[in-house]
Amino acid sequence: MGGDHGPSVCVEGAVQAILESPREFQVILVGDEPKLREALATHSLNGSRIDVCHAPDVIQMHEPASEGMRRKDSSIRVAMRLLKDGVGSAVVSVGNTGAVMAAGLADLGRLAGVSRPAIASRFPTVNGASLMLDVGANPVCKVQNFVEFAVMGSVFVEGVTGKERPRVALLSIGEEPSKGTDLTLAAHQTLSDLPLNFIGNIEGRDVLTGRADVIVCDGFVGNIVLKFAESLRGFLETSVRRQISSNKFSHLGAILMGPFLRRMRGTFDYAEYGGAPLLGLDGLCMICHGASSAKAIKNAIWATSASVEHHVKDRMVEALANLRSVGAHA
Amino acid sequence: MGGDHGPSVCVEGAVQAILESPREFQVILVGDEPKLREALATHSLNGSRIDVCHAPDVIQMHEPASEGMRRKDSSIRVAMRLLKDGVGSAVVSVGNTGAVMAAGLADLGRLAGVSRPAIASRFPTVNGASLMLDVGANPVCKVQNFVEFAVMGSVFVEGVTGKERPRVALLSIGEEPSKGTDLTLAAHQTLSDLPLNFIGNIEGRDVLTGRADVIVCDGFVGNIVLKFAESLRGFLETSVRRQISSNKFSHLGAILMGPFLRRMRGTFDYAEYGGAPLLGLDGLCMICHGASSAKAIKNAIWATSASVEHHVKDRMVEALANLRSVGAHA
Repeated sequence: MGGDHGPSVCVEGAVQAILESPREFQVILVGDEPKLREALATHSLNGSRIDVCHAPDVIQMHEPASEGMRRKDSSIRVAMRLLKDGVGSAVVSVGNTGAVMAAGLADLGRLAGVSRPAIASRFPTVNGASLMLDVGANPVCKVQNFVEFAVMGSVFVEGVTGKERPRVALLSIGEEPSKGTDLTLAAHQTLSDLPLNFIGNIEGRDVLTGRADVIVCDGFVGNIVLKFAESLRGFLETSVRRQISSNKFSHLGAILMGPFLRRMRGTFDYAEYGGAPLLGLDGLCMICHGASSAKAIKNAIWATSASVEHHVKDRMVEALANLRSVGAHA
Repeated sequence: MGGDHGPSVCVEGAVQAILESPREFQVILVGDEPKLREALATHSLNGSRIDVCHAPDVIQMHEPASEGMRRKDSSIRVAMRLLKDGVGSAVVSVGNTGAVMAAGLADLGRLAGVSRPAIASRFPTVNGASLMLDVGANPVCKVQNFVEFAVMGSVFVEGVTGKERPRVALLSIGEEPSKGTDLTLAAHQTLSDLPLNFIGNIEGRDVLTGRADVIVCDGFVGNIVLKFAESLRGFLETSVRRQISSNKFSHLGAILMGPFLRRMRGTFDYAEYGGAPLLGLDGLCMICHGASSAKAIKNAIWATSASVEHHVKDRMVEALANLRSVGAHA
């Protein structure tokens, strides 16, 4: 357990998640036990719903995942083993994404029917949010990966948001099925034949319009679009700051529009979203941004708890097996 | 000559370009002559700097380029032939990008040393702008294409902005040379060895920070990032509109911040930018957004005029030949 703000923010998020949720679930805090106990002591919470498991080591954010993986007493590896052993039902981490994926692959393995797990990310839309995957685990993909992303994304969105038959789209450079690369052309054809609510290609301009609930792409383009979107908050902040320092009317305007401007920044603040699910591991894992607030961690725990409650993992296995049985999936 | 607003906006942009520029250049308006003469009659301009060339047909925005290309009396094909014949020095179009590229390839051909021309697009940054290429002409690229994009982008930015040794970056999913796909890894290596100011990989988060003057990528990812960025204006507008209709303080704030909010929307209004150069054709071509304002057309004409004045085309040929002579380019 780490993150940019240290364990106290994670502990606060976990406590909020428990206190504010109508759902019944328990949280096991995995990390340096004395520090976690100290952070926990500042909250008044019935001890039966929160526990601590000691893991003295942390894989640092910028440490290569392969090196960190060698240390089996790191918090992420201990957490994965708790999940593997059935002590926990899901893992939420504020850690190094590469290390969480590597630990998940090593300790949990892949879900039946999944060739490559993916990192999914929530994008804000004018009416809510959409889920894009992959955003970085698989820079180079095959059609089969896209099929798996589509199925996993669809099951996840249905499980967490309750939306039936989420609209699945393929990110490309034109809406026509004939637009794109050989890979997206073939993927379009295959996705069209699947028992999914596939709405076809969407372009970059449609990511924020909410036309699709699940957006499928390779991890190269997905990561670039995600990082570009993440940078918008800083870009807007710099622009607003310059303006209000140069003009007193603008300064007053900014005060009056304060809640809105904060919300606009929040819209593109990926540290506030509550986690990116790793889909395709044999266990539910959610990664939060290193700079996550307690609220973001609370939201991530809730989304993870909803995934567990709705048997998202089992449903993914079933949906993937179903594809194989109709011969739509290698 | 077309565009979403018809010829009058184009004519107005051309007239402004002539009247407001200290540079001496002439404009030939290519399109339906009676309509152009009518639009021109509303302006008081010395006729010696503007002329009209009749081209009765227009390739529509959503017409497949291949079909439009058959009609040789379309305005874009007539304009390309004027350029080919040396009557004009550059073409500025508000037309269908695919059709302009196809007409350029058919009537002008490729520049010596260029295997595939690219569409370049300006991105706003916190301090100015950067040029990204390719943004759609080449969804699938080879290392050689990236080398050509880097050289052409660098020469273009130097010619138009006067900035010496523009910083060239490769768009990827990590700053380390080892991050990316096989293609970007190989391109990184090759670009490092060229006589360019290559600063290495940048991530999606760096597009708007101004770290690079020229951003090289394939046309698939470039197009998706461009379209995503183009959609931000609508996203911001919808968000501001909702807020000010729901809260009177916000309404007042929005009035006080009016100039700023307009500028923010303008920042992501790609119709205001003054054109995306097609680089790698044997002739200078600039494409403006179909919804371009007269000001955007004026800016596009100025940028094109600067490219002509700074011999951008000849410099590109020279720079590409120089690479071949040092063996860095196939």
